[in-house]
Amino acid sequence: MAEALVLEAKGKLALRDIPVDLAVGPDDVRVRIHTVGICGSDVHYYTHGRIGPFVVREPMILGHEAAGVVEAVGEHVTTLKVGDRVCMEPGIPDPNSRASRLGLYNVDPAVRFWATPPVHGCLTPLVVHPAAFTFRLPDQVSFAEGAMVEPFAVGVQAAVKGRVSIGDVCVVTGCGPIGLMTALAALANGASKVIVSDVAAPKLEIAARYANIVPVNLTETTLAETVRRECGADWGADVVFEASGNARAYDDALGAVRPGGTLVLVGMPIDKVPFDIVAAQAKEITIETVFRYANVYDRAIAAIASGRADLKPLVSVTYDLKDGIEAFDRAVEARPSDVKIQIRL
Amino acid sequence: MAEALVLEAKGKLALRDIPVDLAVGPDDVRVRIHTVGICGSDVHYYTHGRIGPFVVREPMILGHEAAGVVEAVGEHVTTLKVGDRVCMEPGIPDPNSRASRLGLYNVDPAVRFWATPPVHGCLTPLVVHPAAFTFRLPDQVSFAEGAMVEPFAVGVQAAVKGRVSIGDVCVVTGCGPIGLMTALAALANGASKVIVSDVAAPKLEIAARYANIVPVNLTETTLAETVRRECGADWGADVVFEASGNARAYDDALGAVRPGGTLVLVGMPIDKVPFDIVAAQAKEITIETVFRYANVYDRAIAAIASGRADLKPLVSVTYDLKDGIEAFDRAVEARPSDVKIQIRL
Amino acid sequence: MAEALVLEAKGKLALRDIPVDLAVGPDDVRVRIHTVGICGSDVHYYTHGRIGPFVVREPMILGHEAAGVVEAVGEHVTTLKVGDRVCMEPGIPDPNSRASRLGLYNVDPAVRFWATPPVHGCLTPLVVHPAAFTFRLPDQVSFAEGAMVEPFAVGVQAAVKGRVSIGDVCVVTGCGPIGLMTALAALANGASKVIVSDVAAPKLEIAARYANIVPVNLTETTLAETVRRECGADWGADVVFEASGNARAYDDALGAVRPGGTLVLVGMPIDKVPFDIVAAQAKEITIETVFRYANVYDRAIAAIASGRADLKPLVSVTYDLKDGIEAFDRAVEARPSDVKIQIRL
Amino acid sequence: MAEALVLEAKGKLALRDIPVDLAVGPDDVRVRIHTVGICGSDVHYYTHGRIGPFVVREPMILGHEAAGVVEAVGEHVTTLKVGDRVCMEPGIPDPNSRASRLGLYNVDPAVRFWATPPVHGCLTPLVVHPAAFTFRLPDQVSFAEGAMVEPFAVGVQAAVKGRVSIGDVCVVTGCGPIGLMTALAALANGASKVIVSDVAAPKLEIAARYANIVPVNLTETTLAETVRRECGADWGADVVFEASGNARAYDDALGAVRPGGTLVLVGMPIDKVPFDIVAAQAKEITIETVFRYANVYDRAIAAIASGRADLKPLVSVTYDLKDGIEAFDRAVEARPSDVKIQIRL
Repeated sequence: MAEALVLEAKGKLALRDIPVDLAVGPDDVRVRIHTVGICGSDVHYYTHGRIGPFVVREPMILGHEAAGVVEAVGEHVTTLKVGDRVCMEPGIPDPNSRASRLGLYNVDPAVRFWATPPVHGCLTPLVVHPAAFTFRLPDQVSFAEGAMVEPFAVGVQAAVKGRVSIGDVCVVTGCGPIGLMTALAALANGASKVIVSDVAAPKLEIAARYANIVPVNLTETTLAETVRRECGADWGADVVFEASGNARAYDDALGAVRPGGTLVLVGMPIDKVPFDIVAAQAKEITIETVFRYANVYDRAIAAIASGRADLKPLVSVTYDLKDGIEAFDRAVEARPSDVKIQIRL
Repeated sequence: MAEALVLEAKGKLALRDIPVDLAVGPDDVRVRIHTVGICGSDVHYYTHGRIGPFVVREPMILGHEAAGVVEAVGEHVTTLKVGDRVCMEPGIPDPNSRASRLGLYNVDPAVRFWATPPVHGCLTPLVVHPAAFTFRLPDQVSFAEGAMVEPFAVGVQAAVKGRVSIGDVCVVTGCGPIGLMTALAALANGASKVIVSDVAAPKLEIAARYANIVPVNLTETTLAETVRRECGADWGADVVFEASGNARAYDDALGAVRPGGTLVLVGMPIDKVPFDIVAAQAKEITIETVFRYANVYDRAIAAIASGRADLKPLVSVTYDLKDGIEAFDRAVEARPSDVKIQIRL
Repeated sequence: MAEALVLEAKGKLALRDIPVDLAVGPDDVRVRIHTVGICGSDVHYYTHGRIGPFVVREPMILGHEAAGVVEAVGEHVTTLKVGDRVCMEPGIPDPNSRASRLGLYNVDPAVRFWATPPVHGCLTPLVVHPAAFTFRLPDQVSFAEGAMVEPFAVGVQAAVKGRVSIGDVCVVTGCGPIGLMTALAALANGASKVIVSDVAAPKLEIAARYANIVPVNLTETTLAETVRRECGADWGADVVFEASGNARAYDDALGAVRPGGTLVLVGMPIDKVPFDIVAAQAKEITIETVFRYANVYDRAIAAIASGRADLKPLVSVTYDLKDGIEAFDRAVEARPSDVKIQIRL
Repeated sequence: MAEALVLEAKGKLALRDIPVDLAVGPDDVRVRIHTVGICGSDVHYYTHGRIGPFVVREPMILGHEAAGVVEAVGEHVTTLKVGDRVCMEPGIPDPNSRASRLGLYNVDPAVRFWATPPVHGCLTPLVVHPAAFTFRLPDQVSFAEGAMVEPFAVGVQAAVKGRVSIGDVCVVTGCGPIGLMTALAALANGASKVIVSDVAAPKLEIAARYANIVPVNLTETTLAETVRRECGADWGADVVFEASGNARAYDDALGAVRPGGTLVLVGMPIDKVPFDIVAAQAKEITIETVFRYANVYDRAIAAIASGRADLKPLVSVTYDLKDGIEAFDRAVEARPSDVKIQIRL
């Protein structure tokens, strides 16, 4: 039994004791959790009780963005030791599956992911996790940053899939947390400029504090206009990231890509999107899709540790675990000036 | 002045004399045309007078799939000589444009393409063309095959963009001429099996004559069923080519790709298509688009010459130039058993 | 205890009983071996007692090219069933290692490989193997071919790493078994022509029986001459495979690559090779190296099953297990007309 | 006739008038040169009279690293206007060649390159150059930086060919000007850390002033030791750049690459190098080679303009044109603390 922030059912959170399995297998570590970030998916399970085919049928511990300290290591573990400050990749694949053998473990259908029914999350003081998916944090990376490696890894995956390279001009449509993370990952991956579009001024203000980000407020101008100014009339952005999931953004995104450029689909629209295939073909663009991440946690941590990506300004507020329900209720509000809400244990 | 098959205006063809420019520049060759294939775009200009933004406003010679014999060479030309049997890549880019310097000359906005208004096509006895876009045919490749290099090049571009590799299982949705060319290119590029789906039995019968093509008649079964049988329940095809442009095919195509696989968009739908972006993301597939071709003519010719792709059975009927209008009227009929109609000069 | 062909020590083979572990774990299968091919490395352990750092210190069962029939399956195995005809990938990596997570399990330092000291090989009637590295043979693939999937997989890995594509002209320097496998894999992967060079006429005669292979006898002409004839004076082969490991072949190989082309290093020279780095730079070529294979067994099997690669003519002679030592002694002879010697159990 | 710094013959420089062709073709611009950097190849022609097959047989203007101001534009030029501050890519390919059509114009055998016999360089007040190879400098990029785009482009080409990505640990062996440029390009392309090795302390001191560069003085420690500390015992650097051309560096470089990593050969050794092919194979590394650059000038300029790469500290000293011979004589000295010597016109 351990204390945990438990989603009892749609709309009903409780901070209470719940049975958890803390046996440390030979390839596992046990981690004392220090900080957990709240993700949009946590909030969505709270407010809707489901995401697509994943339905909350039993009480489930929420949380999958975590950092903490190693407290015990299994007998085969050589890469970590007690006392290491770490963060954890929350999805555990079958390492022998066809997808895993190809290095694509994120699309292994058997993957078990924290806080995705019926798998418990990490808003509880202790978790057991495979060492292979637990990563040491360098001294200069705080627990708060460590708990942001997970959402940042989505941006890094997007930048890697988009093959962002030195001197690229990029576009990100949508300036929510994932849009911001993607913009920062693109910059850290060599982009010389990232144009970020949204309709919410407070979000764009946060983005605009970073060097080499060009905010575009769609209530005042168009993305096309900005891209024309930055990239020339006959050309476009090297890599465009659609990070809003808003059906109206896809034409903007397609229009912004240069001939032979890349569009990366990060945002997840609820319904099918009317997609202009001929517009994509006329420029022969490549379209990449992103599903979580694979093999980028170490890259994400190195980018933070080296100062390439400064995530510290993105923590909007931090709650103690005892106020965890309040933290979730604030997340439900979705204030445009809130980027990341964290809970400290 | 030269004889030519001229589209006077929408619906009106004439075989008549028309002024043509036959001056041979220093980097050009003059070619006596032997055989020209009729493409769907030729037919579409005939029946509709336009394709998208390209409108027939002046009389225009049709035809862009041609083979012939070099009759004169410019002073700088070293790669070809009089008497060489050749075929021609019908699009001429600005070689100094930004796209061309990147090797993406097919998406150069300045490209001039045969039989695309206002540029004349090649259904006329003599054409002048840059040597750089004129390719020698080996002895074992007939003029009829040479005139099919153009549509086959679209299939080769699709196979190359899809990075088809040895042992891949592929799917092609749509068994029209481009679907067939794509299936043959995929096989020539190493695929061990290509599943081809359509609703027209005569088209599938032609496809089924080739080894390693699995036809799927969608009036009798589903593509999903066939893919499950050939690729296993949890997996899918390595590369799927959508070659129908039919809005209903896109769900089939998305469903058929394996996790981490590739979808190549070859078919050009008239309207936007409702596209299931989350379905693509859940398998983190890559989507490639195809716009004509670049740097594949030599590959296409080599594949034909080496016996890797046998296009000979795809010539359904051949007309003399004097019967060229009749040839076009048969093409308008769109008999399902017709693949390629050619005109001999 | 099981009968096996055991290398007792350098130069000393015995057919005798030896203890083997046949416990079937939950993810394993037990396979009754039908056919095993003899590889150059088996012969080298026999004649030299070591390969580089791998020294035979204890009696070791030889053999790692095997096909057989599944006789038992572990409780978690869903991909195979008793009675399936199979072949086995002989290297077993740590699936959680850093290399394995990247999809590069062949370079995992922890890999355990059949018949590489101190790991036993498969020249014994029964072996236990992970289901993840055991592959079903289609009905049309014989056991003899199944036992050749292993060496063919090296060729497939080379073709995949070289990104051979439709219409490529390739070169293979060295026409031993691996050179031949590489040439066949390049053709199966879309090459329109493969130029194969060697000094041994009997080897080239075997190669020349295949369509689209151009043999070059280096005692009569040069590779450069042939490449000039086939590819033009200013150009070269798209992909060159060095498959001899002979120090003198590297200049030939470098000279044969086209500007921007690829050189794949398959052959393993005993000593360092004087390498002309500036020659590689002047054409800005990419050089790929090959270490065994990863994720290509299914591709290799599909290429054989679809008729893309015909390995049947490469079995030179087959011995019964009771004559296994005789088989090895013939392999030691290294007759130029022998490609693959197999042992049937 | 124009004033110019002319290499009359090996060892003999003169500042004198020489005939130059300043006719502006329709696709050309005429540029008034402001600053020119001295490159090792300029110095080598001065001291040796040749580089490999390129022999100085006629008086030749030196210099190929230049920035200046557009003074006249040809009639077709739309991308530049009089008064634009620019830098120039010094190699002019045949845009219709096979290599150029593939986007690999740097390996076009017909390329004409400034200050490579018999082509004049740019140490003269006015040059005519194709607009396609002339690039506008943003206001924040000085002429001194503009004249360093050329050597930096070599580093950018190396980083792009090495596919450096976010969070990579890189190694550069050799801390001369090109090694430094490569290290800065790798950092600008996302590397989180670059280990730079050399034997000259003054060179390493310059490198060490940059964040995230780890200097390794080979007179005090080994590269292997440092890589082990930074990357772990069983792993290595993601991308290693050999930038010394010193035969002894290649083993260091090979040893430093991680399994599946990339070695980029930038340095140009005078003789063949004893190369450990099996060491490369055992980790199945990819080896890329670099020959000048293609399609990276705009990337290089954007990286400088965005603050990603700070080249300003690399200008060691600037001479006036009238002291140009003195500038060259200092370059011949090769002081370890000199990175780039420039001449202002």
